Amino acid sequence: MIKVGVVGGTGYTGVELLRLLVQHPEVELHAITSRGEAGMAVADMFPSLRGHVALEFSDPTKSTLDKCDLVFFATPNGIAMQQAPALLNQGIKVIDLAADFRLQDVAVWEKWYGMPHASPEWLEQAVYGLPEVNREQIRNSKLVANPGCYPTATQLGFLPLIESGCVNVSSLIADVKSGVSGAGRKAETHILFAEAADNFKAYGVNGHRHLPEIRQGLSRAARGNVELTFVPHLTPMIRGIHATLYAQITKETDFQALFEQRYADEPFVDVLPAKSHPETRTVRASNLCRIAIHRPQNGNTLVILSVIDNLVKGAAGQAVQNMNLMFGFDECTGLSHVPVLP
Amino acid sequence: MIKVGVVGGTGYTGVELLRLLVQHPEVELHAITSRGEAGMAVADMFPSLRGHVALEFSDPTKSTLDKCDLVFFATPNGIAMQQAPALLNQGIKVIDLAADFRLQDVAVWEKWYGMPHASPEWLEQAVYGLPEVNREQIRNSKLVANPGCYPTATQLGFLPLIESGCVNVSSLIADVKSGVSGAGRKAETHILFAEAADNFKAYGVNGHRHLPEIRQGLSRAARGNVELTFVPHLTPMIRGIHATLYAQITKETDFQALFEQRYADEPFVDVLPAKSHPETRTVRASNLCRIAIHRPQNGNTLVILSVIDNLVKGAAGQAVQNMNLMFGFDECTGLSHVPVLP
Amino acid sequence: MIKVGVVGGTGYTGVELLRLLVQHPEVELHAITSRGEAGMAVADMFPSLRGHVALEFSDPTKSTLDKCDLVFFATPNGIAMQQAPALLNQGIKVIDLAADFRLQDVAVWEKWYGMPHASPEWLEQAVYGLPEVNREQIRNSKLVANPGCYPTATQLGFLPLIESGCVNVSSLIADVKSGVSGAGRKAETHILFAEAADNFKAYGVNGHRHLPEIRQGLSRAARGNVELTFVPHLTPMIRGIHATLYAQITKETDFQALFEQRYADEPFVDVLPAKSHPETRTVRASNLCRIAIHRPQNGNTLVILSVIDNLVKGAAGQAVQNMNLMFGFDECTGLSHVPVLP
Amino acid sequence: MIKVGVVGGTGYTGVELLRLLVQHPEVELHAITSRGEAGMAVADMFPSLRGHVALEFSDPTKSTLDKCDLVFFATPNGIAMQQAPALLNQGIKVIDLAADFRLQDVAVWEKWYGMPHASPEWLEQAVYGLPEVNREQIRNSKLVANPGCYPTATQLGFLPLIESGCVNVSSLIADVKSGVSGAGRKAETHILFAEAADNFKAYGVNGHRHLPEIRQGLSRAARGNVELTFVPHLTPMIRGIHATLYAQITKETDFQALFEQRYADEPFVDVLPAKSHPETRTVRASNLCRIAIHRPQNGNTLVILSVIDNLVKGAAGQAVQNMNLMFGFDECTGLSHVPVLP
Repeated sequence: MIKVGVVGGTGYTGVELLRLLVQHPEVELHAITSRGEAGMAVADMFPSLRGHVALEFSDPTKSTLDKCDLVFFATPNGIAMQQAPALLNQGIKVIDLAADFRLQDVAVWEKWYGMPHASPEWLEQAVYGLPEVNREQIRNSKLVANPGCYPTATQLGFLPLIESGCVNVSSLIADVKSGVSGAGRKAETHILFAEAADNFKAYGVNGHRHLPEIRQGLSRAARGNVELTFVPHLTPMIRGIHATLYAQITKETDFQALFEQRYADEPFVDVLPAKSHPETRTVRASNLCRIAIHRPQNGNTLVILSVIDNLVKGAAGQAVQNMNLMFGFDECTGLSHVPVLP
Repeated sequence: MIKVGVVGGTGYTGVELLRLLVQHPEVELHAITSRGEAGMAVADMFPSLRGHVALEFSDPTKSTLDKCDLVFFATPNGIAMQQAPALLNQGIKVIDLAADFRLQDVAVWEKWYGMPHASPEWLEQAVYGLPEVNREQIRNSKLVANPGCYPTATQLGFLPLIESGCVNVSSLIADVKSGVSGAGRKAETHILFAEAADNFKAYGVNGHRHLPEIRQGLSRAARGNVELTFVPHLTPMIRGIHATLYAQITKETDFQALFEQRYADEPFVDVLPAKSHPETRTVRASNLCRIAIHRPQNGNTLVILSVIDNLVKGAAGQAVQNMNLMFGFDECTGLSHVPVLP
Repeated sequence: MIKVGVVGGTGYTGVELLRLLVQHPEVELHAITSRGEAGMAVADMFPSLRGHVALEFSDPTKSTLDKCDLVFFATPNGIAMQQAPALLNQGIKVIDLAADFRLQDVAVWEKWYGMPHASPEWLEQAVYGLPEVNREQIRNSKLVANPGCYPTATQLGFLPLIESGCVNVSSLIADVKSGVSGAGRKAETHILFAEAADNFKAYGVNGHRHLPEIRQGLSRAARGNVELTFVPHLTPMIRGIHATLYAQITKETDFQALFEQRYADEPFVDVLPAKSHPETRTVRASNLCRIAIHRPQNGNTLVILSVIDNLVKGAAGQAVQNMNLMFGFDECTGLSHVPVLP
Repeated sequence: MIKVGVVGGTGYTGVELLRLLVQHPEVELHAITSRGEAGMAVADMFPSLRGHVALEFSDPTKSTLDKCDLVFFATPNGIAMQQAPALLNQGIKVIDLAADFRLQDVAVWEKWYGMPHASPEWLEQAVYGLPEVNREQIRNSKLVANPGCYPTATQLGFLPLIESGCVNVSSLIADVKSGVSGAGRKAETHILFAEAADNFKAYGVNGHRHLPEIRQGLSRAARGNVELTFVPHLTPMIRGIHATLYAQITKETDFQALFEQRYADEPFVDVLPAKSHPETRTVRASNLCRIAIHRPQNGNTLVILSVIDNLVKGAAGQAVQNMNLMFGFDECTGLSHVPVLP
């Protein structure tokens, strides 16, 4: 049983994290902080948690996060890099669900996030929390940078191909579609129901912050530079990411077997039978990534379909998976929910 | 640990029942039958169950349902009344999620369902499975008629008022809105996405099969005849029922307290603070019913808002709740899921 | 050909008004003002208007609205009452799509809108713009108060019953469901896609600003006080209002014939055959109101179903209909769009 | 004024065609046939047409289609090739909205559509009805094969690049997303609301019938063989297609100017300013195609975004555009609807 704190639990990753944590047998929720909502019962903001969460949001400046074993940051970018070091220095472990520690190169981070990094010394100690790549480092880390939603779906779909050197890494294409919760719980016009429903659009084609994160991960796997065209889209659903990935074959192999072997021992990656079409709803509210491999007309282009729930495997669920690793719990503890379909 | 069979697991109540049963610690899934899909892996039809359900659909005529302790019927109306008696006579308990055993009056049943009843002798032995009303009889029953979705939300909303004799039972109005999954997983044009999305309509205003069921339940509570206008509507969401109930006050009392006391010990009925507006998503994928009481302009009309997930408290969850009661498990076993929001 | 100005064209009623006006053969769009967006091309904000609207938003303080024959206010409540009088005094006609001139009783207005009324002298000159009731006064008016969306659907559904004295006017119930565009194009959390999709809720049960407006209209028709319980709901669709109306019969008549006769000459009210269930999509993007009459189980309760598109007959379309009347155009000019289905 | 017949008006392209035709000033609707629905008023099936269409569906065998100047086939694949020749031989012009006459190569057609072609002699006389390519031939044709929805969006997006020889035509990628109405008004389980809502999936990755159609069109433009990977997806909206197209640059030019010049005189193709992100709703219910050109990170991959309403420019609207050309009407007659947003 560990004591857990959550900084900034008023967004979608926050409420999803709370949903998972209150059902986790090894976790005692100790504090949930929010500058804006201090004093409000968490269950008043999210009535779905009535009967499960008795805490109020507490003032970050007065909270007792230092009594925790682990603190999650479910805050906007730029907060964790300021507040996490103090906790880390007291020996408290930290998982940041935002982007503050995801990029190892400070200059790249500062370019894409448009601000100076407040704790570059922690950047190099942070472990990128994709267990399918960094499981052992995560076990031993103090600070985990939880991956973004697009990067999780995209990397899991490309990794077996890149690690095995089977595809041209200078012309990868990731055409990725996200449900609207991926934009966060922010009062912005473009994600209003009447704007986003019955509508489909690409956005950020000229540069999205998840591009350098994906490139970093794939380049490590390739042990060399990777070039990627990444086009995110907004699709009128609440949850879910569907990555449609394109790669040019440079070396023949049994691609179906390649994926099956790569993920044979992965509890949260499900390689579907050949010619399947994974639907986002088949992972809804679960920590799974489902992947299918296609080679249309037996040509030179591979098409990989990879789906996750952006709030679970793409955020809160992966954070809990990382927590399980960091504290020596079974990796699947508290994460065995059956997807909610329909 | 009990052995459980499911007859007809290819609809939405079926797949939801499987979602709940595979996470239930006291249940071993023994057989899932389907005439049409015998031999198909259940997880091929519902990929959300991959990794959780290894069974194939089995041929009903060859299946070993007689090895079960309990059989759920998640079939269309008219099947359980034919097949359940043979199982019941072998001492196997049965919960019917369809309507076959919901009405005690054979003539009323036959009028509304348009066919002769195949086992009227079991009608009188069947217990109507609304635990908030019939908990003790359910514990001791062999055959439970699981309530309909509209009747669950509507009865739970009206019961405290009627039991306490505070309202005019000759002019009740239930204006109820259902998500589209309530219409079942049937290939019918009117529930296609392109028909039902971005659209709202009433249907069955002149007579819906849930009307006699609600009237029966409320009349029992009133110990006399109840008149109800029941208008169901289809709303473009997948899951959820929102009942907006209107009653004319005949006796003053503290209505908020009345509801709170009536449901004080009910694990799955949550009376919200006064002036709340429950949202269907706050019960999504959970077995909860949330209720709020309003008295607009302090007039003579009470407005009760009652929400459930039609597939859980309105179907599969309530069936599991009934199972727990019938087998002496804690009533909440396997039903403590936190609602999925957003 | 008249010169028309629009004040505040950045919301949904604004863009819908522009859609209708640019297709109207008697209208020349002269100016569209917006304090916040002055200088921006209208078609940049609403790309649906590319090729149809060449204007930029102009600064209200510098605009040439005084060159117009008619100015529409598509502004938040409280603006028209401040700015319209100056235009009216120059002989320019005004249609206010907000609520500033809808209630005749200043005290009631100030109570429900929470501010002092800036031009009470114009309140009594304003004509309530429901052509089915006030056609002749609208023809001769300088200032039209365009009705709210809920009030339009509700009044059109109740009027024949109340005018004919057939129902009890002390226990009317209006259970009304609105698409999310009815909440406006405002950056508010509760109408985000991820909040409002796959969800259903009532709101404002204890008092919504459209209640006094409906009560005023129905009381005039009844020539006496009307009591109404009005419960608005938010349903996950973009456009559309579905009013489900309940009334107790006090005098028998042929209700179907009553409605057909009442609306026989109305170009925008369509009384459906008996036992119909109008769907909101059958009026989508059109100025129609479709109505069906039910008497379930031949009992004492009438159920009236009334649907409109909240942005057309519930706002911009009705405003154009009023404009046609005020300027002597054929009432249907520019309003003959076939509903968009699916 | 021409007399027009519609064969098979019970699907979505049929009702959309009727919506456009009843508003077209040069068209008199003469007959609408349906084998299954003969005798039913068209407006009973589609209440959106009440007041606009007085016809009943007529029995195809008894109808007077031979009195028409033009007959549209809005039928499933395989019908027009059987019935159109008799009409054509009587001098009646035909536009087929299905696929019967889209492919010039009979063997390819028969392979993809799985049946022998009933009138191969008409295949070579049929003109592929994409006005932006074949305007003059359409003017003079008797039989127009109206393009598919995916092919329209995809070809319009790729054509300027291919005609100008600027990209590698052996590695084109079209990642295309369609609203659910594109699957037709068929009672099939997978397009039920509760299956398709809040869900996203690819389908037909291994081969979709629109692939050979797109390849044929692009190969003509390239005057040589074109290789294309085409991945269609189903997205939870009613109308709209969003094509995200990827091409490798082989020759530098000003791509924005290239598109602007190519479509400068096209009334229904709107090239957006550089770096735009067209949304499907900006063309909803209109005959427009909006296109934006991107070159992310100034790399070697062009990303073209192309949106249409699948039922208008992707079906019925393009058919009316072709009709206008065939009969010498102004090409835009009856097609100037402003898109419906929101």
